[in-house]
Amino acid sequence: MKEIRLIPIEGVPEVVAGDDVALLIVDALGPEVLEDGDVLVVTQKVISKAEGRSVPAETRAAAIADESVRILRRTEGGMTISETKHGFICANAGVDASNVGTGQIVLLPVDPDASARRLRSRVQHLTGRDVAVVISDTFGRAWRLGQTDVAIGVAGIEPFVDYRGTTDTQGRELNATRIAIADELAGAAEMVMGKADRICAALVRGAPVTWGRGAATELVRSPTDDLFR
Amino acid sequence: MKEIRLIPIEGVPEVVAGDDVALLIVDALGPEVLEDGDVLVVTQKVISKAEGRSVPAETRAAAIADESVRILRRTEGGMTISETKHGFICANAGVDASNVGTGQIVLLPVDPDASARRLRSRVQHLTGRDVAVVISDTFGRAWRLGQTDVAIGVAGIEPFVDYRGTTDTQGRELNATRIAIADELAGAAEMVMGKADRICAALVRGAPVTWGRGAATELVRSPTDDLFR
Repeated sequence: MKEIRLIPIEGVPEVVAGDDVALLIVDALGPEVLEDGDVLVVTQKVISKAEGRSVPAETRAAAIADESVRILRRTEGGMTISETKHGFICANAGVDASNVGTGQIVLLPVDPDASARRLRSRVQHLTGRDVAVVISDTFGRAWRLGQTDVAIGVAGIEPFVDYRGTTDTQGRELNATRIAIADELAGAAEMVMGKADRICAALVRGAPVTWGRGAATELVRSPTDDLFR
Repeated sequence: MKEIRLIPIEGVPEVVAGDDVALLIVDALGPEVLEDGDVLVVTQKVISKAEGRSVPAETRAAAIADESVRILRRTEGGMTISETKHGFICANAGVDASNVGTGQIVLLPVDPDASARRLRSRVQHLTGRDVAVVISDTFGRAWRLGQTDVAIGVAGIEPFVDYRGTTDTQGRELNATRIAIADELAGAAEMVMGKADRICAALVRGAPVTWGRGAATELVRSPTDDLFR
């Protein structure tokens, strides 16, 4: 195995609807820095803002209801845990007010995998580099306190590294292990972004990803297979 | 923010009961390489093996029952999802057969936070360096397919980076955000370890951790607070 580098991309300006996020990131980074095989992790918020997914804060309750296909739980603190149209389980259907213009809240992208694919194509067009893209968001978990960043959009890679059918150092078949590397990439990149700063993107260099046409929707456990809804 | 480096530690030999894991890792790494502030991520399996937590494979069913305080679900594939004595929710109470000597299975450490503290002290004694330690294991999740590495033991840092009460770039208070950075560290390190190889440890350099006397048990959501058991 080789070393992996997590590199914050500083200097991306405040994003507004219609912005070319790929161009802003490439400008911030300097095009010579990107290498084939890099993974670009970008936070959901700038993608949503650029795609015009902001709505007035006073429509928050309606927005959460509208973005949810099913409410799983309501906490005593008034938080809704719901299944989004994409199948993600998260707080308030991903509707968030932090780091957004005053009076606005931001919804998840309509199709974050498509957003990731667009961003990837655009970066390739601008730089000639073949990079993967992960769009990340900060989700809570069952059973464990605290939140981690996970992948809600993926382009250029498979979301898993699949060890099923491979053997361990003793030649014995590994337990059904399929690592959700897209989520590990998102969580790793979170560490160099920092919630209170304006760092919305990071480069991951050297990650052992499988290149392919995967999607973050593959990470969603189907309701019939999910023992914890 | 600054760059983070994820560095695999290669060359640790097969660990057996009684081994000094800290010494094996320091020998593999070369003591001059460690720096104050590094986070050493070590997989649960080598800690458990060194602590003699291996049992004969034919006692597997009894071991899983014994390691569980509560069975949450049983899958059709015969997997048990249980709460361990530590409070972790995971498959088969963390009892695992892969990468273990033939005929043996390995249980989780009795007290992984204590294991982490011992390893940290020993590394400090051997090298004079003040490093943090995270003991990682590969867990499945509710709602999302695939597994990621999470922290089951922590020493030298707080498991969270706490943004509650801080404000975003607009001066607005952030949503109740407490990042489980110990889990992100474990997941990030997993990417340089590789399941089928014998890499059982990694260095994380530059992570924005909060130094302190935290424990991985703080990551466990209390059953009364957990809406998804």
